Amino acid sequence: MSEPTQTEVHRIAAAPARTASYEADPAEVRRVLLLYSGGLDTSVMLKWIQDEYRAEVVCLTVNLGQPGEDYDVIKDKALRIGAIDTHVVDAREEFARDYIAPAIKANALYGGGYPLFTALGRPLIAKLAVEYARRTGCDTIAHGCTGKGNDQVRIEATVATLGPELKVIAPVRSWQMGREEEIAYARANGIFVKGGAEVTPYSIDDNLWGRSSEGRWIEDLTHAPEDDVFQLVTRPEEAPDEAEIVELEFERGIPVALNGERMGLVELLEQVAAIGCKHGVGIVDHIEDRIVGLKVRDIYEVPAAAIILPAHQELEHLVGTIHQNQFKTSLDQKWGYLVYAGLWWEPLRTDIDAYQNAVNEHVTGKVGVKLYKGSARVVTRESPNAVYDASLASFAESGGLFSQTASPGFIELWSLQSRMAHQLRQRRS
Amino acid sequence: MSEPTQTEVHRIAAAPARTASYEADPAEVRRVLLLYSGGLDTSVMLKWIQDEYRAEVVCLTVNLGQPGEDYDVIKDKALRIGAIDTHVVDAREEFARDYIAPAIKANALYGGGYPLFTALGRPLIAKLAVEYARRTGCDTIAHGCTGKGNDQVRIEATVATLGPELKVIAPVRSWQMGREEEIAYARANGIFVKGGAEVTPYSIDDNLWGRSSEGRWIEDLTHAPEDDVFQLVTRPEEAPDEAEIVELEFERGIPVALNGERMGLVELLEQVAAIGCKHGVGIVDHIEDRIVGLKVRDIYEVPAAAIILPAHQELEHLVGTIHQNQFKTSLDQKWGYLVYAGLWWEPLRTDIDAYQNAVNEHVTGKVGVKLYKGSARVVTRESPNAVYDASLASFAESGGLFSQTASPGFIELWSLQSRMAHQLRQRRS
Amino acid sequence: MSEPTQTEVHRIAAAPARTASYEADPAEVRRVLLLYSGGLDTSVMLKWIQDEYRAEVVCLTVNLGQPGEDYDVIKDKALRIGAIDTHVVDAREEFARDYIAPAIKANALYGGGYPLFTALGRPLIAKLAVEYARRTGCDTIAHGCTGKGNDQVRIEATVATLGPELKVIAPVRSWQMGREEEIAYARANGIFVKGGAEVTPYSIDDNLWGRSSEGRWIEDLTHAPEDDVFQLVTRPEEAPDEAEIVELEFERGIPVALNGERMGLVELLEQVAAIGCKHGVGIVDHIEDRIVGLKVRDIYEVPAAAIILPAHQELEHLVGTIHQNQFKTSLDQKWGYLVYAGLWWEPLRTDIDAYQNAVNEHVTGKVGVKLYKGSARVVTRESPNAVYDASLASFAESGGLFSQTASPGFIELWSLQSRMAHQLRQRRS
Amino acid sequence: MSEPTQTEVHRIAAAPARTASYEADPAEVRRVLLLYSGGLDTSVMLKWIQDEYRAEVVCLTVNLGQPGEDYDVIKDKALRIGAIDTHVVDAREEFARDYIAPAIKANALYGGGYPLFTALGRPLIAKLAVEYARRTGCDTIAHGCTGKGNDQVRIEATVATLGPELKVIAPVRSWQMGREEEIAYARANGIFVKGGAEVTPYSIDDNLWGRSSEGRWIEDLTHAPEDDVFQLVTRPEEAPDEAEIVELEFERGIPVALNGERMGLVELLEQVAAIGCKHGVGIVDHIEDRIVGLKVRDIYEVPAAAIILPAHQELEHLVGTIHQNQFKTSLDQKWGYLVYAGLWWEPLRTDIDAYQNAVNEHVTGKVGVKLYKGSARVVTRESPNAVYDASLASFAESGGLFSQTASPGFIELWSLQSRMAHQLRQRRS
Repeated sequence: MSEPTQTEVHRIAAAPARTASYEADPAEVRRVLLLYSGGLDTSVMLKWIQDEYRAEVVCLTVNLGQPGEDYDVIKDKALRIGAIDTHVVDAREEFARDYIAPAIKANALYGGGYPLFTALGRPLIAKLAVEYARRTGCDTIAHGCTGKGNDQVRIEATVATLGPELKVIAPVRSWQMGREEEIAYARANGIFVKGGAEVTPYSIDDNLWGRSSEGRWIEDLTHAPEDDVFQLVTRPEEAPDEAEIVELEFERGIPVALNGERMGLVELLEQVAAIGCKHGVGIVDHIEDRIVGLKVRDIYEVPAAAIILPAHQELEHLVGTIHQNQFKTSLDQKWGYLVYAGLWWEPLRTDIDAYQNAVNEHVTGKVGVKLYKGSARVVTRESPNAVYDASLASFAESGGLFSQTASPGFIELWSLQSRMAHQLRQRRS
Repeated sequence: MSEPTQTEVHRIAAAPARTASYEADPAEVRRVLLLYSGGLDTSVMLKWIQDEYRAEVVCLTVNLGQPGEDYDVIKDKALRIGAIDTHVVDAREEFARDYIAPAIKANALYGGGYPLFTALGRPLIAKLAVEYARRTGCDTIAHGCTGKGNDQVRIEATVATLGPELKVIAPVRSWQMGREEEIAYARANGIFVKGGAEVTPYSIDDNLWGRSSEGRWIEDLTHAPEDDVFQLVTRPEEAPDEAEIVELEFERGIPVALNGERMGLVELLEQVAAIGCKHGVGIVDHIEDRIVGLKVRDIYEVPAAAIILPAHQELEHLVGTIHQNQFKTSLDQKWGYLVYAGLWWEPLRTDIDAYQNAVNEHVTGKVGVKLYKGSARVVTRESPNAVYDASLASFAESGGLFSQTASPGFIELWSLQSRMAHQLRQRRS
Repeated sequence: MSEPTQTEVHRIAAAPARTASYEADPAEVRRVLLLYSGGLDTSVMLKWIQDEYRAEVVCLTVNLGQPGEDYDVIKDKALRIGAIDTHVVDAREEFARDYIAPAIKANALYGGGYPLFTALGRPLIAKLAVEYARRTGCDTIAHGCTGKGNDQVRIEATVATLGPELKVIAPVRSWQMGREEEIAYARANGIFVKGGAEVTPYSIDDNLWGRSSEGRWIEDLTHAPEDDVFQLVTRPEEAPDEAEIVELEFERGIPVALNGERMGLVELLEQVAAIGCKHGVGIVDHIEDRIVGLKVRDIYEVPAAAIILPAHQELEHLVGTIHQNQFKTSLDQKWGYLVYAGLWWEPLRTDIDAYQNAVNEHVTGKVGVKLYKGSARVVTRESPNAVYDASLASFAESGGLFSQTASPGFIELWSLQSRMAHQLRQRRS
Repeated sequence: MSEPTQTEVHRIAAAPARTASYEADPAEVRRVLLLYSGGLDTSVMLKWIQDEYRAEVVCLTVNLGQPGEDYDVIKDKALRIGAIDTHVVDAREEFARDYIAPAIKANALYGGGYPLFTALGRPLIAKLAVEYARRTGCDTIAHGCTGKGNDQVRIEATVATLGPELKVIAPVRSWQMGREEEIAYARANGIFVKGGAEVTPYSIDDNLWGRSSEGRWIEDLTHAPEDDVFQLVTRPEEAPDEAEIVELEFERGIPVALNGERMGLVELLEQVAAIGCKHGVGIVDHIEDRIVGLKVRDIYEVPAAAIILPAHQELEHLVGTIHQNQFKTSLDQKWGYLVYAGLWWEPLRTDIDAYQNAVNEHVTGKVGVKLYKGSARVVTRESPNAVYDASLASFAESGGLFSQTASPGFIELWSLQSRMAHQLRQRRS
């Protein structure tokens, strides 16, 4: 009798162990490249992967300019928890040149407030993870992102794009540990835990281009920022009583000098950030639409971005025509959206870069920004490419390109259809 | 010793039975509302659900104007395969009024070629499924979509939105049957199978607003359409030798009369489709970007849309200003994208509808479309709201709104910045 | 011999007296409605029109909330210079309700910095000019705008739209007086002149929604703002040492209460402006692309806008989906552009308003803004319509709408095409 | 007594002889470069300029591929009417390479129907006019455009941009001759007139990329096209009964071969046009928004564009991701708008070209287009860069990049915010 067999064959497929093609089959994990920060999550993870998968773990820590890290301590800690190898990569130059520089050209501010520092860092970190996984013979990459955030998208999309032969594990998504259980696990396994279980810390991420805090009271949208969240930027109330004007010089859209001194982009970003921090500049309190569909509130400290982005945009407006200036916002917004959404490797991003480079070819000049107790305001600007003719703009005399008697003809034609349409509609109603 | 326990507690979580909150837990499925078409897939599904889930099945069939269906036969078939109840809903009026009419106002053509007929139908079908599931005491809705298409997105997003207490099962995604196995299963279970296993049919979907074919040679992009795919539209080569001009009358963006005769929208769509079919109009051979990330080729037959959409757009251009006409394309495109992407219930869609309604308030008038052996071309148009003044446009005399001597002033100012910028750039290089 | 005659007939047409259809033929000007501010330009104009056109002049002064005006003094002055009649209209309510309120809904900031106060005021002033011209039997409207600015476009387009039977004269465009000659003319005609010829003042415009300064050192883009330009907003350095949080309540996109006290929009705008001024908030130093093709630098003081616009946008982001929030910027920008460009009466503006109203239907709630020495920063927000679920966003537990295991499936499909495309391109190069 | 003098000094300025800075002062015109077509308008103009300005005239005729011109006849005619010199330039290669090719990359169709052939030709013609004016010592350029069209904008903006030292005269705007008077003037001056005064001809413009007709019954929007307007394309009713498939091969966005034979772009455009004409392809009946504010109806014959543009777009869709394909339309539209509006030299156009080139880098492959009695339909396509994987798209088996079980996770997150928002709104209402 064949029916029972038929039915049996077509049973509801066993729930899939993996819903994405790049997810690792636990049975095949041999050696894991762990993106290791030295903090609680990834330290627990380092031990947990060894136990759970019976796999070797190689640790990779990427320096994108996050302040105050001691990479020797991190390496030691990793080895003590059982890593078979550890690597620290200083990727600040590459980060500044290939990730932050195009973001400046694109005036990149997701949702009108977030300069994308983490979003820019993740594809680079994941790209390095692919390189080091290959170099060290790993079959799998592990990261510490949760299942609710954008970073899992950015990292996994990058690995699946650049290392399609590699698999991914994301322990935080699959284990069932809360913070207290992580601490218990850490203590049970001899992993050093900073602070106590009683203090839930903010969830922090930072690099050269900014710093974010999430969690705790930040999730209560009616709770105004508490002072202890600001670890980078001075509270405006405590900033100097004297304003300071910094002068940034740009070449082809990229800042190349600060107060008359030329320097590399990494150094310039660090110095601008330091001055901004001193003056309380760059605090952002932001509601954001994550790509996975949640809204979240973040507190950002972005002193360098809060000075450089407005300066860049001012110069861009100065050298661009009205057509260029009006149109560019849509490309800037799309660029920011793609990067935010984990689509760094999407060809549209590079198409838009071609446009951005064409515009920025002319974005050369100097901008002065006045910093004072939390605010940054452009006060001077100049460029050899300025589409600005003071004699044209003046109330006094006009130059040769412009005849005052041109206006009525312009207005006649400029408003013609709107007038016709309005009168038709009036007549009708 | 506590360690082993710790490790045990935090094992890799068992692969989830459900990756979405709306997916049904098999153990809790008691009564299922099945979206039933009468075809092979959903007939096998009707039996399979009873066997697999030990659940009762209520069948719902929605009439959106797909031609040639015998709904009594479908009901009989469902009851014979074991449905405890069957419902057929004639939703053509609602479909035309609430789904196709706004699509006409939005000139909706995804990817420049697809008038969205299926995309418009799915949220309505799923909305009716929610209504009937509630009415008939079902806890779960079952549909026949695959895991690679857009329709699963449209149906599941609608159910999760409108019936958050209901769950969804999508047997095609979870069983492991190919077409041959489905036929074997059907025969083993006494389900009538049209045609034989040897003939793989096209995958068809159709309603009032169009018909799509996928599969077989269509997947070979270098294979020009074979004649047997066209079941609706006459091959242009066999269309009448005489051209025919149809006159459509629109009120506020909606067609209300055909060749001078007022009629309801459903009847009008049917009659326009019939005339279009006769003349070979509405064949589309289209590469499309599915929302799940695949490209696919479709052969569409959209005789009504191929006549009504260009007529509507012509009238819209006639009554709109250059500012309206240039800007609307971006809203039209976004509207089409949202609907294509299964986001019918997204508030942005209704925001855009507010805009579309404001524009279409003035889209009233008549358009003549000439049909001939596969082509449809607008040849006449008139509107009381036309922003057109023949005396202004004429080469002869001009009206009072326009002075010929206005042009130089206009050109002076219109080109001023572009000229300044060009000269600056020339000087530089 | 016919040739000479032919040639004579077709001589180069005499240069047109008028290049726009709405320009007045001097011979037909009988009674002029002058938009009169009481300042030097329009006072000289009042006399000059009487002399030059042998025409009667009726004066109209519109109160849009510009601070510090004494309208009785203005009326007296007009009558003394020979006006046959004078009118002062308090249009603040209409301005706030019909012009500023939609600008708030549209987050209107031209060029990323200009809240459009003058651009919003001009069409209302010109509309009132048409009404009063008709009421007082004038055939012509006179205004004091120059031939290089945006305001001539806004006023003349409005008059030509709403009063097509009326003509326009713009004496500043046709006379050949500089400031010194105006003063000489004024003195020769017994017109009171404030200050002396030696002091060239800033060119000022202001109303409820802001204040602009142009001219003098402002035209030198490298000249940082001098203190004397700020007549409204306290210099940040002199603002209170204590920060202040103001709470704004919005209903359907419009602010209705300040610090818990409900009040009309005019009063609210005035009170918010006063608080902003105290804290040094709302200084903008802006390069702008005029619609007539020039770039110009403006110093703006916009204390109310600098507080209300960010608060509105914050609330909008909170109640909108990612799709709404990403898309709205393009409509906001277009709305601002049209209004800036003098196209207030263009039907596209009202189409966009329909969209803006649909979105703002849900923009209800409270926002706290912290003001401190020049900066305004949103610190709290709440809304019954917030698309925010703290339990979803939390690092702790998640709600029913979201399964953590959904992410890999999402990432798989979200990145699919980008990955395919990237790999194809890598393979090629 | 000083007052009368004052008043006198400030009289209404005499109406300007010139409202634009580039308009010629009649007294200073010595030698004129006339853009000469050989037709009635420019022949009358050639004589009239000599008479009216007492100036010498050099004629320039540009060959952009307009069919059926005998350039020797044109030169002879010019010399007979008194030109001191005549030049004919074959600019077809430059036109195809630098103007049509970027238009193909941008899928340029203004208003959804006009492939911009005239708009693309005018900046090239005016650029050559500047070159030849300089070479032949002319101080002024004369063209035959009216004061109501787009072409005056395109030509004068180009001259003012590229030859700021040159002036422009546009006799049709300044003389007062209608067609009858032109004919009388021609006869009186011994200028040969084709046809009689009784026949008002269509107003025609054509080149390699298409042909337009305006005037006569075309201005009556309810008048369906009369057969005599089609001088290029065969009426569909008279086209062959056999369909024909043409195969176009593209490299980096540009067509390089026809039916397997490689050829230069000019030859390819001509051959494709010839095949299209034979099959009745490329008739467009179009309402258009001129940049000067009028609407006008045009009858276009664009056989090459009607075949090449859809083929290009098909290939672009095939090699692009959904993100690229959705976003590009806004850049395509802007590109078309700028070119239509006479802003060829605007830097935004070259910025967009950088984007278009980046996209088209991958637009390589073959497309088959089926032509039949007026319709052109893509039927085959292939590309080494196709982001298409038949095994992924198939209903049968799927490849490694895609897991069917990914869908529910995707749908969960994709629809999350829309669902939350919808439910909030339902609850409220």
